[in-house]
Amino acid sequence: MNKSAKIGVGVIGAGRIGALHIEHLAQNIPEAELISICSLDAPGVKSLAKQFNVPKVTTDYNTLLTDPQIHAVLVASATDTHVEISQAAAQARKHVFCEKPISLDLEQIDETLAIVERAGVKFQVGFNRRFDASFMRVREAVASGEIGKPHIVRITSRDPAPPPIEYVKVSGGIFLDMTIHDFDMARYLIGDEVVEVYAVGGVRVDPKIGEVGDIDTAVITLRFRNGVIATIDNSREAVYGYDQRVEVFGSKGMVKAENPLTDAVTFSGSEGTRAASPPYFFVERYKPAFLSELRAFFACIQEDTPPPVTGNDGRAPVAIGFAALKSLRENRPVLLSEV
Amino acid sequence: MNKSAKIGVGVIGAGRIGALHIEHLAQNIPEAELISICSLDAPGVKSLAKQFNVPKVTTDYNTLLTDPQIHAVLVASATDTHVEISQAAAQARKHVFCEKPISLDLEQIDETLAIVERAGVKFQVGFNRRFDASFMRVREAVASGEIGKPHIVRITSRDPAPPPIEYVKVSGGIFLDMTIHDFDMARYLIGDEVVEVYAVGGVRVDPKIGEVGDIDTAVITLRFRNGVIATIDNSREAVYGYDQRVEVFGSKGMVKAENPLTDAVTFSGSEGTRAASPPYFFVERYKPAFLSELRAFFACIQEDTPPPVTGNDGRAPVAIGFAALKSLRENRPVLLSEV
Amino acid sequence: MNKSAKIGVGVIGAGRIGALHIEHLAQNIPEAELISICSLDAPGVKSLAKQFNVPKVTTDYNTLLTDPQIHAVLVASATDTHVEISQAAAQARKHVFCEKPISLDLEQIDETLAIVERAGVKFQVGFNRRFDASFMRVREAVASGEIGKPHIVRITSRDPAPPPIEYVKVSGGIFLDMTIHDFDMARYLIGDEVVEVYAVGGVRVDPKIGEVGDIDTAVITLRFRNGVIATIDNSREAVYGYDQRVEVFGSKGMVKAENPLTDAVTFSGSEGTRAASPPYFFVERYKPAFLSELRAFFACIQEDTPPPVTGNDGRAPVAIGFAALKSLRENRPVLLSEV
Amino acid sequence: MNKSAKIGVGVIGAGRIGALHIEHLAQNIPEAELISICSLDAPGVKSLAKQFNVPKVTTDYNTLLTDPQIHAVLVASATDTHVEISQAAAQARKHVFCEKPISLDLEQIDETLAIVERAGVKFQVGFNRRFDASFMRVREAVASGEIGKPHIVRITSRDPAPPPIEYVKVSGGIFLDMTIHDFDMARYLIGDEVVEVYAVGGVRVDPKIGEVGDIDTAVITLRFRNGVIATIDNSREAVYGYDQRVEVFGSKGMVKAENPLTDAVTFSGSEGTRAASPPYFFVERYKPAFLSELRAFFACIQEDTPPPVTGNDGRAPVAIGFAALKSLRENRPVLLSEV
Repeated sequence: MNKSAKIGVGVIGAGRIGALHIEHLAQNIPEAELISICSLDAPGVKSLAKQFNVPKVTTDYNTLLTDPQIHAVLVASATDTHVEISQAAAQARKHVFCEKPISLDLEQIDETLAIVERAGVKFQVGFNRRFDASFMRVREAVASGEIGKPHIVRITSRDPAPPPIEYVKVSGGIFLDMTIHDFDMARYLIGDEVVEVYAVGGVRVDPKIGEVGDIDTAVITLRFRNGVIATIDNSREAVYGYDQRVEVFGSKGMVKAENPLTDAVTFSGSEGTRAASPPYFFVERYKPAFLSELRAFFACIQEDTPPPVTGNDGRAPVAIGFAALKSLRENRPVLLSEV
Repeated sequence: MNKSAKIGVGVIGAGRIGALHIEHLAQNIPEAELISICSLDAPGVKSLAKQFNVPKVTTDYNTLLTDPQIHAVLVASATDTHVEISQAAAQARKHVFCEKPISLDLEQIDETLAIVERAGVKFQVGFNRRFDASFMRVREAVASGEIGKPHIVRITSRDPAPPPIEYVKVSGGIFLDMTIHDFDMARYLIGDEVVEVYAVGGVRVDPKIGEVGDIDTAVITLRFRNGVIATIDNSREAVYGYDQRVEVFGSKGMVKAENPLTDAVTFSGSEGTRAASPPYFFVERYKPAFLSELRAFFACIQEDTPPPVTGNDGRAPVAIGFAALKSLRENRPVLLSEV
Repeated sequence: MNKSAKIGVGVIGAGRIGALHIEHLAQNIPEAELISICSLDAPGVKSLAKQFNVPKVTTDYNTLLTDPQIHAVLVASATDTHVEISQAAAQARKHVFCEKPISLDLEQIDETLAIVERAGVKFQVGFNRRFDASFMRVREAVASGEIGKPHIVRITSRDPAPPPIEYVKVSGGIFLDMTIHDFDMARYLIGDEVVEVYAVGGVRVDPKIGEVGDIDTAVITLRFRNGVIATIDNSREAVYGYDQRVEVFGSKGMVKAENPLTDAVTFSGSEGTRAASPPYFFVERYKPAFLSELRAFFACIQEDTPPPVTGNDGRAPVAIGFAALKSLRENRPVLLSEV
Repeated sequence: MNKSAKIGVGVIGAGRIGALHIEHLAQNIPEAELISICSLDAPGVKSLAKQFNVPKVTTDYNTLLTDPQIHAVLVASATDTHVEISQAAAQARKHVFCEKPISLDLEQIDETLAIVERAGVKFQVGFNRRFDASFMRVREAVASGEIGKPHIVRITSRDPAPPPIEYVKVSGGIFLDMTIHDFDMARYLIGDEVVEVYAVGGVRVDPKIGEVGDIDTAVITLRFRNGVIATIDNSREAVYGYDQRVEVFGSKGMVKAENPLTDAVTFSGSEGTRAASPPYFFVERYKPAFLSELRAFFACIQEDTPPPVTGNDGRAPVAIGFAALKSLRENRPVLLSEV
């Protein structure tokens, strides 16, 4: 593809993440040109289009897929539409950036990846945290051998507040909705595959979460093929804010990413020293990462290189999530080969 | 002014800071509409205009001042043109955002402020650091009484590398080029006026700086009318990066802003623990502050409120700078009333 | 007991920990009077006695147990002698401070605790880390409700270097030698009992450790009766030094203890900022805690209060250790009721 | 002197610092033997002697100076007796450790140093902060060239609470009582002599301090012979605790010592993260440094090497203090050669 030409882009889905992608495309990504937005919310999408000077809007994603100006689509619609849209887009020879998870059905994921493969288009999954500056630095310290041979990974991932119960009901459960990012992070940091999962958890934050069959607090142990052990802890509610830390310990040292804070100020008074809190939630914390993942997607199209987050990277955390769920239910370690 | 209408803006000067303002206007400030750019560098300005979809370009700022679409101008040209352009703009009834320093001549500053006053337009000076999230938090802790009655201010301000000697020659010297920001910061944090200055300094970094009559290392003591004492230290070269810290100590506590770091990662190895460096220099560090100061400027136009950085705020640090220079030369504390 | 009278003390065992107790008794504990030291190393114990002005030495602990000047004994001999000596001491009506572990045999522990109970003497186990200022502060934040209802405990415990293989062989394995402290810490911080254990681990540091049937790297998950989940990670070799951190996360916040550092100095150069390392190993790190645990032991004698670390506190971590070992071997979660 | 023989020591003065030295001598310094304590407070000194097993007590320091068992004396009596006692001790061929300041009279100091010189005894001044682990590390980073050529020193030194007014009256003023430590620290860190001083200050904490002719808040600028500039800030009252920080900035980097904290714990709640406070005051903070300075004193006797803090090191900060006082009164920089 002509490197200097702008890549025509369509965005499907204009919820929280879709709108963020639209903003980034309109303002911060000169290598792409946002041609069209598709959303079932017709008035909302018109308003967004006006705000960001997007020439076309539609409520039917097929309109967008047949648009010759459009070379790539961003799939940010509801999870249960990802597979259908991604497949249709690939068959229409559009490059696809698909929000996570591709699907909550491993067979559908496999089918989608096969279709993408045959179509020969790029397919990148929206694991945005891989593009966080701190986590990239941690990955680099592992990949470069700076910490030697890795032994142990620790990931803490706690949300500031639980989502609405209606969302919890359809989320696929904490492992597929929340921990999926941590499963991806563990794989990203170590660069190897998980072979076994053990999960424990409970309902500590809100009994309603338990009533709909989910848990809100969990500790998960992962064993990697290469012997590395990872431990992940999750909570749906950390009152001090979005807590996203990782640590990799190895034979030559330890690298860890602490939470960034909203400012670099401390106040010292008669009751000790107080520092700021982390950014409130994922949009605030990962805004630069959301931007970087899109730029990486367009770069892989322009340079015809493999996407930095592959289809398999999209599949593996879902499989781990199912293994975790099975482990929780059966209270035993579960092999990935079992799911 | 109609709050919903966009404010037409012209930018005069398209160097490093001018280009940053242009980028911000084009991408991040929906309340303004960038109409025209003026620069003596005709090809450069055309390229910028194309990149950011700016409809008009000119090499003559008068063209811009007579443009009825333009309500406000940003003066980011060479320092020795600030006065002439600001005065002309005010007389053309354009609101003026003027980069610091307004001038290196106090009489010319006074004349400009008088003209602005008579014209009834807004006039804001580009002391961007006041809009840094950390420094705003420090100011708030002082203004709200959180630290009680302030006693001592400490400001460290060190550049990562000295500017070219050609720049140093015309810069007005370290106090008017570099410390001027710290003089402003001290006034901002304390909310009171400096009455006396004592400066010591020397040439430690580069003998060439001494050869052109300037210094590169300085410690300045300020006495405020309300008894607060501030100490500022400057260097033209900190090998560990742009060092910008402030601390205010008072009867009920101390508030301080440390340097932000480029990531939140530490590496622990056999030689201790290593953390990241601060952002390289002022563009990287203060990008959000440069954006916020523009938004504040447009807000004061839309809401017809006083600008957050006034003409007097632009004048005072220049006067302090002259007092510091006199102090350095005569090796004695100098009253502001002497300059 | 007369509060103002000094408590006569005998120390049995004069290895690394025994010698430290002797030093503390001689120099820092005015409420006790060190009467006699017993060690099989006759010349070594004489030299120690001379250095610290201890009036009596013996190679037979029975001499010490029949000494009417002695009211309390510190058992710091080899692990496999703890039970015999503790029982004899209790039967001789001496208060007993016994180094951990009491024994690697749960039945023997039970027998010992029963004898102690019948004798009516104080019996405290040497879980020194409970007396570390930082961990006490963490415990207090949990006990006082400052963090609300606790949900998750994270403990990192890594040694700077593995012990000699000869030691590993007789140590009882990593869980009973090293993790036992972390099992105690988890119980201490949460104030409740562990009901289930899951352990994974491997040989990452030194193949020789594997050859003698042990592991050197482990991650252990504990479930408490009250629903709290703890995750512990261990390594026999952290090149950056002794790594001892705990974190408790709850409904109202998180409290954590980072490693102390040997100084409060940072160096910032062109490659970022460097901080100091933690104290080298347990003697350096926990010296004040070793002192405090002794003072607490003497206080419970003087005030006739229960010891701060009870016999059950000595038994429980051994049981958890056996459950962990079983879990590792059978690769499944193991209930405490199974051991 | 025979290295293996214990050095017989007498302590003159048993106030706060004297008592601390006595405790250290009795418990932590095997190379010395505390023979006698002299204090005008006869009952107090008897109680101390009993507590620490000191064989002799006296209310007349001459008794102590003629004691053949005593080879070295620690002068920890009231400042106005330092000269008389130090001179008498040197003439009695006792090595002298003298608390700071030697005297508030430069001529008397010179006379004392001359007598000490003639007597050929060791004479060390009690600038304990030089023995703080963090400050030693900073000094090392300067002396070894790690930070390159030093340019700027920043010292913050603030007490947690002002002393009683009766003490302030006879203290010699803030510069000779409090800043004297910082003058010493600056000289220690840079290893060169101060040539000029500029001081500003005021009464901010307590008007009573002003009424007795002193100030409680100060900022002092020092120029060194080698061009380094130091800035010191002082306050008699920091509500967040004893604040003792230093920073040296040079051509290759910056080294700084932050305050140590009483524990390594942080609590994160809905209002941000809270850390501990520094140790309350100088006894808590500098206990290990007070111990180290004594050990260094005895080492210089045993090894017949120059004391680590010389007579000139005791004199120079007093001279700087007088220059600071003159500067404050005359509001101008004062050369050391003027005092």
